[in-house]
Amino acid sequence: MSAQPVQMKAVQYRAVGAAPEVVTVERPEPGPGQVLLKVTAAGVCHSDIAVMSWPAEALPFPLPLTLGHEGAGTVAALGEGVTGFEVGDSVAVYGPWGCGSCLMCAQGKENYCLRAAELGIRPPGLGAPGALAEYMIVDDPRHLVPLGDLDPVTAVPLTDAGLTPYHAIKTSLPKLTPGSTAVVIGTGGLGHVAIQLLRALTPARVIALDVTEEKLDLARKVGAHEAVLSDADAAAKVRELTGGLGAQAVFDFVGAPPTVATASACAGVEADVTIVGIGGGAAPVGFGVVPYDAAFRAPYWGSRAELIEVLDLARSGVLDVHVETYGLDQAPEVYERLHAGRINGRAVILPNG
Amino acid sequence: MSAQPVQMKAVQYRAVGAAPEVVTVERPEPGPGQVLLKVTAAGVCHSDIAVMSWPAEALPFPLPLTLGHEGAGTVAALGEGVTGFEVGDSVAVYGPWGCGSCLMCAQGKENYCLRAAELGIRPPGLGAPGALAEYMIVDDPRHLVPLGDLDPVTAVPLTDAGLTPYHAIKTSLPKLTPGSTAVVIGTGGLGHVAIQLLRALTPARVIALDVTEEKLDLARKVGAHEAVLSDADAAAKVRELTGGLGAQAVFDFVGAPPTVATASACAGVEADVTIVGIGGGAAPVGFGVVPYDAAFRAPYWGSRAELIEVLDLARSGVLDVHVETYGLDQAPEVYERLHAGRINGRAVILPNG
Amino acid sequence: MSAQPVQMKAVQYRAVGAAPEVVTVERPEPGPGQVLLKVTAAGVCHSDIAVMSWPAEALPFPLPLTLGHEGAGTVAALGEGVTGFEVGDSVAVYGPWGCGSCLMCAQGKENYCLRAAELGIRPPGLGAPGALAEYMIVDDPRHLVPLGDLDPVTAVPLTDAGLTPYHAIKTSLPKLTPGSTAVVIGTGGLGHVAIQLLRALTPARVIALDVTEEKLDLARKVGAHEAVLSDADAAAKVRELTGGLGAQAVFDFVGAPPTVATASACAGVEADVTIVGIGGGAAPVGFGVVPYDAAFRAPYWGSRAELIEVLDLARSGVLDVHVETYGLDQAPEVYERLHAGRINGRAVILPNG
Amino acid sequence: MSAQPVQMKAVQYRAVGAAPEVVTVERPEPGPGQVLLKVTAAGVCHSDIAVMSWPAEALPFPLPLTLGHEGAGTVAALGEGVTGFEVGDSVAVYGPWGCGSCLMCAQGKENYCLRAAELGIRPPGLGAPGALAEYMIVDDPRHLVPLGDLDPVTAVPLTDAGLTPYHAIKTSLPKLTPGSTAVVIGTGGLGHVAIQLLRALTPARVIALDVTEEKLDLARKVGAHEAVLSDADAAAKVRELTGGLGAQAVFDFVGAPPTVATASACAGVEADVTIVGIGGGAAPVGFGVVPYDAAFRAPYWGSRAELIEVLDLARSGVLDVHVETYGLDQAPEVYERLHAGRINGRAVILPNG
Repeated sequence: MSAQPVQMKAVQYRAVGAAPEVVTVERPEPGPGQVLLKVTAAGVCHSDIAVMSWPAEALPFPLPLTLGHEGAGTVAALGEGVTGFEVGDSVAVYGPWGCGSCLMCAQGKENYCLRAAELGIRPPGLGAPGALAEYMIVDDPRHLVPLGDLDPVTAVPLTDAGLTPYHAIKTSLPKLTPGSTAVVIGTGGLGHVAIQLLRALTPARVIALDVTEEKLDLARKVGAHEAVLSDADAAAKVRELTGGLGAQAVFDFVGAPPTVATASACAGVEADVTIVGIGGGAAPVGFGVVPYDAAFRAPYWGSRAELIEVLDLARSGVLDVHVETYGLDQAPEVYERLHAGRINGRAVILPNG
Repeated sequence: MSAQPVQMKAVQYRAVGAAPEVVTVERPEPGPGQVLLKVTAAGVCHSDIAVMSWPAEALPFPLPLTLGHEGAGTVAALGEGVTGFEVGDSVAVYGPWGCGSCLMCAQGKENYCLRAAELGIRPPGLGAPGALAEYMIVDDPRHLVPLGDLDPVTAVPLTDAGLTPYHAIKTSLPKLTPGSTAVVIGTGGLGHVAIQLLRALTPARVIALDVTEEKLDLARKVGAHEAVLSDADAAAKVRELTGGLGAQAVFDFVGAPPTVATASACAGVEADVTIVGIGGGAAPVGFGVVPYDAAFRAPYWGSRAELIEVLDLARSGVLDVHVETYGLDQAPEVYERLHAGRINGRAVILPNG
Repeated sequence: MSAQPVQMKAVQYRAVGAAPEVVTVERPEPGPGQVLLKVTAAGVCHSDIAVMSWPAEALPFPLPLTLGHEGAGTVAALGEGVTGFEVGDSVAVYGPWGCGSCLMCAQGKENYCLRAAELGIRPPGLGAPGALAEYMIVDDPRHLVPLGDLDPVTAVPLTDAGLTPYHAIKTSLPKLTPGSTAVVIGTGGLGHVAIQLLRALTPARVIALDVTEEKLDLARKVGAHEAVLSDADAAAKVRELTGGLGAQAVFDFVGAPPTVATASACAGVEADVTIVGIGGGAAPVGFGVVPYDAAFRAPYWGSRAELIEVLDLARSGVLDVHVETYGLDQAPEVYERLHAGRINGRAVILPNG
Repeated sequence: MSAQPVQMKAVQYRAVGAAPEVVTVERPEPGPGQVLLKVTAAGVCHSDIAVMSWPAEALPFPLPLTLGHEGAGTVAALGEGVTGFEVGDSVAVYGPWGCGSCLMCAQGKENYCLRAAELGIRPPGLGAPGALAEYMIVDDPRHLVPLGDLDPVTAVPLTDAGLTPYHAIKTSLPKLTPGSTAVVIGTGGLGHVAIQLLRALTPARVIALDVTEEKLDLARKVGAHEAVLSDADAAAKVRELTGGLGAQAVFDFVGAPPTVATASACAGVEADVTIVGIGGGAAPVGFGVVPYDAAFRAPYWGSRAELIEVLDLARSGVLDVHVETYGLDQAPEVYERLHAGRINGRAVILPNG
């Protein structure tokens, strides 16, 4: 690691309400216990757009912020005291950083760290400098997962668009026995991975719901047994397809008021209804309002072990993540395209590509 | 078993909106596969009052109906083909009868039978003739649990007021590790058993919420570590008592809009929020609305194995169910007292006492 | 149902050490709560041969015995008090009958009934009259699972050769995450179904072990990722294929001393080692002797819910059970062929075919 | 932290077969990412004696070795990059150090690290310098658990003598329902804590087995419902006490051939048989040899989350750990007393006391 300061390019959100910009900043040096990555691939996610729409008082971190919470890279330098990795290793970054010590972190569930807010710990790209840069700092080697021969370009979306549905589905595996039905609402970035995960991990019949025939075609292509237009009749169709019983698991990757209502109406007795999308919807849960013992949850991202598992699943060749690749300079334009709904699958930036 | 018809007394709900009456009816004979019980004890439950307040079109069964869904008795006669029980055995009745064959019933979760509605199967006292009579028919010996030396008077409330909280709590046991907190809202018939179950089954700290100091005293007496007035500040107090983290499990035995709101506000990350009470409340669940991965459910009664377990727990001597006993002729008056809130613990009728 | 006694053919084990015979016996009538089936298909199992090799003092039931513990049929008559089925329904028989009431039976785990021995309850074909006859009695409708459109000929082996591995595998599902390895030792009747179950239910890599190249070919054909000759080097090869870590689950369908030793030597930390085969082997388990927290078990058959699930899995079309069909008169010859290892997959008798 | 080298006292195992000695060594300095503790309390464990009995070729680490794998201390200095702790914090040390990154470590199960052997990572006192010294280095702050107001003297044995049985028991919690029985074999350092854990965490009846009336008295005093002499009849007595069914969980803290045989003979259907003691025994597991689906395991220590939980349990006041305290200079003598069976409960060294 060279001692003299060098420059690098980064995509930053610099002012509330402004568009992200490509800027030149100082390349960081890894402190003790940290790791410097040369970024090979960084995913661009809808939730960045949500965050950039928030007013200043809602923003939980100072600007400017280097974006990118899905990151992969090669180890460029190890801070003092770091062991277990070597320069050149290809790795993915576990994003939901926590304190490492609380009861949740002690189980690797850093996404549910009990002290992150208090300690000001935030994920890269969502408070800490992110992956949309030539180099990035990872605060601790425990946040790295070796990629080995996995292609970083198709693997990097798995750190969020794969890990998030994997976590949601893993909770519901005991309910997805033979003869059961899983419903996936929204077949975009996360949903099209969710369908594949359900097919790889369970014997459940998968019913996909979305709003256009084009998206339903994609759903079928990636493995949905049934694809149903997501309208006011969708829940009735799911009930019909399930002999009146409803689904044993429903995953709503949109989370808007109408999809949440559909999700609830699809559920059977003891079903899991998992609201992943941040669309502002909420389902009322009470006695007589929902089927007996149906469990409604809104999870967030996933655990460290789950990221290892989802990457192992990719390694077995059963996941087909749709990506479009771009250079770092195109990132502002990619955000525009994403906002306009003109990205198919996941946009991945290659900062050193 | 005598062949000539004989008479018996029963407490019936005979006309929509009318008060229950003590009437004389024909004593039933057990058909093939059925069991006739001489009732030793029958619990009187708030939910009967709820059912009797429904309009005719909401009533899911014809009148007259012999009431009583908590029953215990001695075996008086065995229908043809019944094995495994003998005349004179002291038994409790498992109330949520199902078809016995569907995927749920095959696991003993007859409370969630997938075919009961379709087949017109209903619990005794809630569609089938119930336990508020000198004798009752149990449709299948699988719905009997031997009581042995257990006192039927204190055991009979456990078939609902014990089984229902036991089922709710059993779901949450993995979350009630050392250092965790459980909140019980409503310390009446079910709630005062729930507190004892939590103390016997878990190392969790138990915080009870109710609306009068008298009820909070009972809560403390049966084992609550903390007892908090259930008002608009209750959730804030629970958060304070839990270092800001909230509870790992919340059980709402009231289920009214304000208690459901409190239940939701008490919950921590990955908590279970279980709405048992039928008070018409519903908690909205969505991303950003509730803590990450908190699971909201509204269960119903419990499984056959769980009834065996809760009776085994009683056998070990750790449960102290508060009961008031009455004769069968007093049943109409007992419903009045219950409606007026003038029953302490559970009212138990002794039809042959 | 005709009242006059009629005759039927049955395959009976009549004297200790003698070969099974086709005999003519009285057709049974269903008593109250029982069901009479006209048998459509009955599987012939190795364990019958084991039982027929036992000396008189080890035999836990009197002779003669009608054989056949894998049965399917159509409902021919309903005993008094039976509901939920109609004459003509196509059904499979759940074989491990229990008392129906104990803590295990209350969960549908009648295979582990706590009172069956005491009450003298035994499975059809293993104490009670079995399915190798034109008609058979099922003691309770809870022991029937509707087949609907499923072909009884390929479905009937699932009642044992499917249910037994399904139960074993279901226990291990939480360990068979992406990146994990499952080893199947013995790819015959149960093993070749186990491989398919593992592929349908888990993302695990499946390594099959058997003693001939022909059997390894079958293993590959039904889905094994790797097929390894089951010799003294087999465990070393499994370790090599798993980067030294060993497998997360090992299923031994042979259960002989050498296979049990291999099973133990294949296991990794926290693995499940499940000995299904009754070959007389036993693995020593102690600290320093086996990997940390590896769990060694010998299960038996499966639960009622698991039979429903395995039949639902067959309904989805992912199981390919290899069967050879024969008439009832050929049953004695089939036992000879089975003993000589000359049956491919499962032999199924069609008593009314 | 002073820059000049200073001296400290430590108890070291210096030559194979020799007795441990108190020596003066250089006080270590924490490197980047490490923490220096001033040791408040260190437990003395039987397993040290086992290790010191091994021949040179079996010893997995070089000598001299500072002993002590149960440690508590106050933070004396933080290495570069360490956050989340402050000088003066009272902490316990999680002993089974792992790589921090593998699938096991990612769940906090560092006791089952998949790479520790390969990377040469060993616990303090069992390869790395241990707690029997005035100061000790902890390699990473994730291996510290805050003690707060807990007394380090009674808390320090919980890091092994508490954590090890806690881990074993936690696995079996789902089986320890009301009406179940747990057997504890060996009521010494770990066993007397196990009895208390079982009483605090489960409604099971606890039967303790040991070889002297004095030890059985202690077992009763700390909560065993029954205490039975551990001889050839012990298993028969357990069966009698359980109505012939056997126990649902058996924990053998001796692990010698006779206790392992007793453990196996006590087990019921679906029981957990957990061999914790390193006494060289092993139970044969195979079909027909052990009860159906009884699971035999030999676990090791526990996870990071489990240590947090067991310390939280101590905080609630339900554990009464028996300790004898000594100064550092007495450590060699303590090992002699321990070897001679002359320590009651756990010996704890106060290196700075």
